[in-house]
Amino acid sequence: MAVNLYIPPESHIFAVAGVEIGTAEAGIRKANRRDLTVFRLAEGSSVAGVFTLNRFRAAPVQLCEAHLAAGQGIRAMVINTGNANAGTGETGLQAAKDTCQALAGLLGIEPAQVLPFSTGVILEPLPVDRLTAGLPQAIADLQDNNWFAAAHSIMTTDTQPKIVSQRVALGNNTITITGISKGAGMIRPNMATMLGYLATDAGIAPDLLKEMVRSIADRSFNRITVDGDTSTNDSFIIVATGKSQVRIDSTSDPLYEPLYTALADAATELAQKIVRDAEGATKFMTVQVEQAKTSEEALKVAYAVAQSPLVKTAFFASDPNLGRILCAIGYAGIADLDVNGINLWLGDVLVAKNGGRNPDYQEADGQRVMKEPEILVRIALGRGDVSDTVYTCDFSHEYVSINADYRS
Amino acid sequence: MAVNLYIPPESHIFAVAGVEIGTAEAGIRKANRRDLTVFRLAEGSSVAGVFTLNRFRAAPVQLCEAHLAAGQGIRAMVINTGNANAGTGETGLQAAKDTCQALAGLLGIEPAQVLPFSTGVILEPLPVDRLTAGLPQAIADLQDNNWFAAAHSIMTTDTQPKIVSQRVALGNNTITITGISKGAGMIRPNMATMLGYLATDAGIAPDLLKEMVRSIADRSFNRITVDGDTSTNDSFIIVATGKSQVRIDSTSDPLYEPLYTALADAATELAQKIVRDAEGATKFMTVQVEQAKTSEEALKVAYAVAQSPLVKTAFFASDPNLGRILCAIGYAGIADLDVNGINLWLGDVLVAKNGGRNPDYQEADGQRVMKEPEILVRIALGRGDVSDTVYTCDFSHEYVSINADYRS
Repeated sequence: MAVNLYIPPESHIFAVAGVEIGTAEAGIRKANRRDLTVFRLAEGSSVAGVFTLNRFRAAPVQLCEAHLAAGQGIRAMVINTGNANAGTGETGLQAAKDTCQALAGLLGIEPAQVLPFSTGVILEPLPVDRLTAGLPQAIADLQDNNWFAAAHSIMTTDTQPKIVSQRVALGNNTITITGISKGAGMIRPNMATMLGYLATDAGIAPDLLKEMVRSIADRSFNRITVDGDTSTNDSFIIVATGKSQVRIDSTSDPLYEPLYTALADAATELAQKIVRDAEGATKFMTVQVEQAKTSEEALKVAYAVAQSPLVKTAFFASDPNLGRILCAIGYAGIADLDVNGINLWLGDVLVAKNGGRNPDYQEADGQRVMKEPEILVRIALGRGDVSDTVYTCDFSHEYVSINADYRS
Repeated sequence: MAVNLYIPPESHIFAVAGVEIGTAEAGIRKANRRDLTVFRLAEGSSVAGVFTLNRFRAAPVQLCEAHLAAGQGIRAMVINTGNANAGTGETGLQAAKDTCQALAGLLGIEPAQVLPFSTGVILEPLPVDRLTAGLPQAIADLQDNNWFAAAHSIMTTDTQPKIVSQRVALGNNTITITGISKGAGMIRPNMATMLGYLATDAGIAPDLLKEMVRSIADRSFNRITVDGDTSTNDSFIIVATGKSQVRIDSTSDPLYEPLYTALADAATELAQKIVRDAEGATKFMTVQVEQAKTSEEALKVAYAVAQSPLVKTAFFASDPNLGRILCAIGYAGIADLDVNGINLWLGDVLVAKNGGRNPDYQEADGQRVMKEPEILVRIALGRGDVSDTVYTCDFSHEYVSINADYRS
């Protein structure tokens, strides 16, 4: 069902010097599938992350934040699928600690140098014994270029692995950026049942990377929405191993901008892949709001449209139902919005003009746009000069089926 | 598909002295169905209403507000289905004015004494000629007890008519309260594609009724949610004809409280009927949040749970997926929420205790509750002593089908 989700051939996935990956079948929830992933990171790597704002933060998220704050240098990451270790209280926290302890012991590092991640069902105890029993298998599998296996291993309701990889010329050098993500439902700003990992062999000063990961998450993973739910476990991590010749310590470095852009583009691609593979998605929609007074109000409108079940079901039906879009703009919460200033395009077709149906609009033109798998919804508010964009998908029968059956 | 939607027998629907109703087939959108309804109200009736907060307020809503403000005394209401006359600009406003003018001419009253209402598709011109051509038929049909026909005539995607009727003893007298509503999707607080009309033969001072209609809407129609969308046309009206012996001029009248309660109960029943008949609904859920600091935060949590597509699809599947409910509580937006203080019941079963799974909870107990058509979700936040309640339904395949096919 995924919408134009590009999966690069394995030959186009570049190893990142300083990152090794191994996977294993730990039997966390289901037998005969790789559900455990270990990253080993070279000494001296900078690692920074952003995490869910949900008040029910899962145990591994709490540990990630503590271990990043401890500042001992992150040397490994461990990810399990099948169980989110969320809403599991003290027992769950202990399970996450035991996981870090076990991996640290096997790799000869400190537990505070390990970042743990979990994704899957909530409120069920993590089978930590099975997890730790699987670690030696994952460690035995550690290889330079195991990104593809990792992209598969972290999937839950995803139908496709999500992976980006590119080589970027920076000054006289070339760096590599490779990343994976997972997530298919329960997605909206401020992170979701979403895991994203981006690694580069560029060197980036730790404090700078900390700023960059926030800003990049805000432009990528915080601009996608599937169903408006945000999960307990969402995490986005950037690793910079420093194994290339490129090292950047401040925003004034001339290579900072191109590096930032390359990382942000890769993150946006990973984020968009989550929408393309969203549960039951048949269309990929870009909701672009222009002429707002502030980014906040642009996003209010974009999210109102992107999250409206009525808009999303109309898109599923390829129905250019502009009434539902205008209606969502109307309840987005901009108190002094003058609807007479609003123009609305579906693709290149001006469907609403000055807040009403464009007199020149022909339904056949709207229909043509709506039948495409990728649709741009462009809304001009006529209030200012700020734009912002959100990515989303339609709402199909399949979404209901998947989410009604998830635990069975 | 409606969930326990009680339709009283015609013999239990009581006429309200001072209210006559007629319906007609005007062919607004479809042939061979009654789609036009006229109310004639006795002189001296008090009429008050509340309307959508959507910035795209439909033309009839704008006229309703103007005519209520004009204070000439409302003597008639006219309701068409099939076309919402929304997003139709000046032409649409003129069409609504023409409707009032035509009805006023036929009834020998002023246009400003008419309230117009429209519901149906948005952004298409109202066929005002067909509408006004149907008025004589509706007027010829005016009768005391035509409530049932009106309940049918105002339906759009509703599968069942929604009607309440009761006689209430007030002091030494008996008054009658009868009302109808329509609406099935696009429902959430601050009104929705929702029309509600409640009439009583009690007399209520106009200023008092104005206060009462706001307060009662807030306890009834503003506490239901189907899909979080709010429409351009939502309206709730109370008519008090004063044809009984009861007349109430202030809140200090000893009969005020029982009258208020009777009207509020009738409005709540009408509102709940909308949820019971919501598009594709198979379950009716009451989300009750207790121990909040404020009503605002209780409602934030209640709506986060009631509007989560993941929660709603789990209920559709009769899956006691408490993880999804806790998750929604977590992202409801209470920044200092201590999740360890949260208890959660499904029906009478304590499923989560102190923010985690209740150790004594058996899945079979949750399953038993979830199989019922009516489910109480009770959430105690452990922060204060304020409670509030929201009514909603589950999210089914049928919802997607109905909304993907609505215009075809």
